[in-house]
Amino acid sequence: MSEKLNQLKEILGEVSDLNHAASVLDWDQQVNMPPGGGEARGQHLATLGRISHQKSTSDEVGKLLEDLKQEFSGSDSDDGALVRVAARNFDKAIRVPAEFVAERAVVTTASFEAWVKAKRNSDFSIFLPHLEKVMELMRNYVSYFPPADHPYDVLLDDYEPGMKTVEVKEIFDEVRTQQVKLIKAIRSAKQVKADFLHKKYNEKKVWGFSETIISRFGYDFSRGRQDKAAHPFETSFSVNDVRITNRYESENPLATLFSGMHESGHAMYEQGISLAYERTPLANGVSSAVHESQSRMWENLVGRSLSFWEHFFPELKKVFPSQLEGVSAKTFYKAINKVEPSLIRVNADEATYNLHIMLRLELEIGMIEGNIDLKDLPEIWNTKMQEYVGITPPDDARGVLQDIHWSAGLFGYFPTYALGNLVSAQLWEKINKDIRGLDDQIRSGKFDSLLNWLREKVHIHGHKYDPLDLIQKVTGSKINSAAYVRYLTKKYSDIYGL
Amino acid sequence: MSEKLNQLKEILGEVSDLNHAASVLDWDQQVNMPPGGGEARGQHLATLGRISHQKSTSDEVGKLLEDLKQEFSGSDSDDGALVRVAARNFDKAIRVPAEFVAERAVVTTASFEAWVKAKRNSDFSIFLPHLEKVMELMRNYVSYFPPADHPYDVLLDDYEPGMKTVEVKEIFDEVRTQQVKLIKAIRSAKQVKADFLHKKYNEKKVWGFSETIISRFGYDFSRGRQDKAAHPFETSFSVNDVRITNRYESENPLATLFSGMHESGHAMYEQGISLAYERTPLANGVSSAVHESQSRMWENLVGRSLSFWEHFFPELKKVFPSQLEGVSAKTFYKAINKVEPSLIRVNADEATYNLHIMLRLELEIGMIEGNIDLKDLPEIWNTKMQEYVGITPPDDARGVLQDIHWSAGLFGYFPTYALGNLVSAQLWEKINKDIRGLDDQIRSGKFDSLLNWLREKVHIHGHKYDPLDLIQKVTGSKINSAAYVRYLTKKYSDIYGL
Repeated sequence: MSEKLNQLKEILGEVSDLNHAASVLDWDQQVNMPPGGGEARGQHLATLGRISHQKSTSDEVGKLLEDLKQEFSGSDSDDGALVRVAARNFDKAIRVPAEFVAERAVVTTASFEAWVKAKRNSDFSIFLPHLEKVMELMRNYVSYFPPADHPYDVLLDDYEPGMKTVEVKEIFDEVRTQQVKLIKAIRSAKQVKADFLHKKYNEKKVWGFSETIISRFGYDFSRGRQDKAAHPFETSFSVNDVRITNRYESENPLATLFSGMHESGHAMYEQGISLAYERTPLANGVSSAVHESQSRMWENLVGRSLSFWEHFFPELKKVFPSQLEGVSAKTFYKAINKVEPSLIRVNADEATYNLHIMLRLELEIGMIEGNIDLKDLPEIWNTKMQEYVGITPPDDARGVLQDIHWSAGLFGYFPTYALGNLVSAQLWEKINKDIRGLDDQIRSGKFDSLLNWLREKVHIHGHKYDPLDLIQKVTGSKINSAAYVRYLTKKYSDIYGL
Repeated sequence: MSEKLNQLKEILGEVSDLNHAASVLDWDQQVNMPPGGGEARGQHLATLGRISHQKSTSDEVGKLLEDLKQEFSGSDSDDGALVRVAARNFDKAIRVPAEFVAERAVVTTASFEAWVKAKRNSDFSIFLPHLEKVMELMRNYVSYFPPADHPYDVLLDDYEPGMKTVEVKEIFDEVRTQQVKLIKAIRSAKQVKADFLHKKYNEKKVWGFSETIISRFGYDFSRGRQDKAAHPFETSFSVNDVRITNRYESENPLATLFSGMHESGHAMYEQGISLAYERTPLANGVSSAVHESQSRMWENLVGRSLSFWEHFFPELKKVFPSQLEGVSAKTFYKAINKVEPSLIRVNADEATYNLHIMLRLELEIGMIEGNIDLKDLPEIWNTKMQEYVGITPPDDARGVLQDIHWSAGLFGYFPTYALGNLVSAQLWEKINKDIRGLDDQIRSGKFDSLLNWLREKVHIHGHKYDPLDLIQKVTGSKINSAAYVRYLTKKYSDIYGL
């Protein structure tokens, strides 16, 4: 084997270790850290980030990659993929000056704090000057890259490599028309009953039931764990240590079950990556949309299906007999799929969720183009919410200030949530062709054929293939809205008798 | 200020960040990590250790220190101490090759996992091959240093800088004679009643009571936390994030209270170090014996005193009324100080504790000299336990496998526990001269004068002074056994009516 490849792997292994160490520190900060620990933790993370950046952008790595690109040109081996992915990461990283990276850390730390305060006080003006600085950062970031068809392409590429703004817009335009039509039909139909979802459900029992479900899915607790945090997330320290967090909110107690399924979907993806890729840049999910297709599949296509609850509802009813008295599996199924215009993206039902995303995409594009005066954002937000979702936020906390992303400089991320929904439905159609009787399997609480299919077609490959190629290869088509619209239409026609 | 000093501080700050990151990873491994995570965690720690070692032993640091030693020669300022401590650490560290540091991380990670399994199954043979590798590491480590009077001096110096094996042996010989005499006298006295300590005590309530006690001591939970682990320990990620672990054993349920006090003693030391020393090598407890003097003081001189329980026993009785029915504070005090030969070091009474340490010291010296065949360890352990403590372990879990130290490569550490006991009594005599009515304060549940005294005389200085100098300065004498023997004799004369 190439000596240079070994050298590269050694450096990338170190970088992977440093990044995983930082992930442990970040997880600890969100799950365990006492309040006093924050300042020092910021320094620990800054040092790890700086060393990791230095190591991954060194001249040595650049020279190795130059030679290895030649050697592995056109190779579809794992090593070829490794060199290709490492070279792309390197080319991106060296464009960004170290001073920018340091400044971004300072600006986003301050803007995150301002956002927390602004949201608490529902006062956009507290966040506005910080958002202005973040936007300046974003525009500077874009300027480090060769001119693209659209400046937003550069931001999008960090989360969905290869995807173009114009393609996303086109796909979203189609979905919007279809989803708005569907929602209209639902509005004039007979509404479903869901009051029993908001009774008191004991936190420990809900948590226990969540762990039962995700264990049965195939999330491996011997290589992971579920902890409490302010926000549900998944994080990976190696293929064999992939953790998730969850939360419990008394006003919506069973949401814990669905966020658990969602994060376990992310986690099963990471747990399923080939061990051969450990300590290389191939040991990651391939893109945000593909990642999201996994989480949304387990949460929605499996976890909000009638077959699933035909199996699990009797178990749930045993745990919560009084809360669910007189409720059938079918009634429960309808309730957890109830469609209603809502203010908060993360709580939105499947029929309206993508509309929340489209709104954000349009704003982000306007902001990066400079066509939106940032001080007008709350008003534009509210107008579009009324237009798309049919509801106007009563305050900015439940409007323009609801998401953490902009404060953290995560522009280009939102659309991948909606793309993930589309991909999940594309995969689902293919899976149901490949696995005979999957629905019956789910109805008897069996998920191993499904998980094995996902492992074999998606998970095991990690970052080996380009995400858009992988989607084409596995589903037989590009990202498109047809399967998702078919799925939504069928599901809601049944629930609402359309 | 010296530009070179700033450069040094910047590098030492990075090293401190890397070491603290490693401490977080280590804490996580012992508190949270799922079994699958072990292998990758070993690699993360190896990489952090290697980079930290490279940075702290670079030629750049060597040159800076060479110049700064001149500049700060004889200075007793904080910066002078920083340069002195950094130079000593550097001189030690450059002797140890980076590959050794990385190998040690890998070997001890694996041997820790093996030890956990060996202890669970009470099967020394699972641990033996790993211990052999650890001993090879230890012998290699010693070989990197100039020949000492005794090879064990090299190991001891890492925990108790300046202390020699021959001195420890001498002090221990004195203590042993005195303690064995005391134990003999106790054996022929009327025995105390302690059966009520081994009733069923609810784990959660015991844990809660432990947290009440250590909060009242002054352990700051806003800058720390207490978690469950196989072995109680204290670890520090900054002066403002100092954590402890504890455990609950149903056969000795109240031991949790005393291990909590013990670890909080370590933690209050670390929480009390001057914030000005953050990210420098001065932000640590100065030596293992001084550290242990703090933990043993809170555990024993405070936590096993009659005054303490005259205050806390009524509270404890409220939590466990049936278990403690008919028991008085005095009876409880006698019971928790009952002297009896016992198997487990950490549960040993004060009269026999040091004998457990002496046994380990002799074994470690034999192991490092190569005079002990490791496969014979269980038998030698059992024979010596019978000889010193008068009891033979029924299995290796409660014998040679009970302590974590050897699995982690912590050779040279054990004697500092006994030295810490001696220092705690030396400090206690001084404190009781300085604080009038301390006993009455303890009897009313007040510990602030005591903690403030310790903060001012010991904690705040961190690693500024050499430990043996600090002990001399604060107590007015070298480490010696007189105060401890006086303390033990007085305490047990009262309890056993000698």
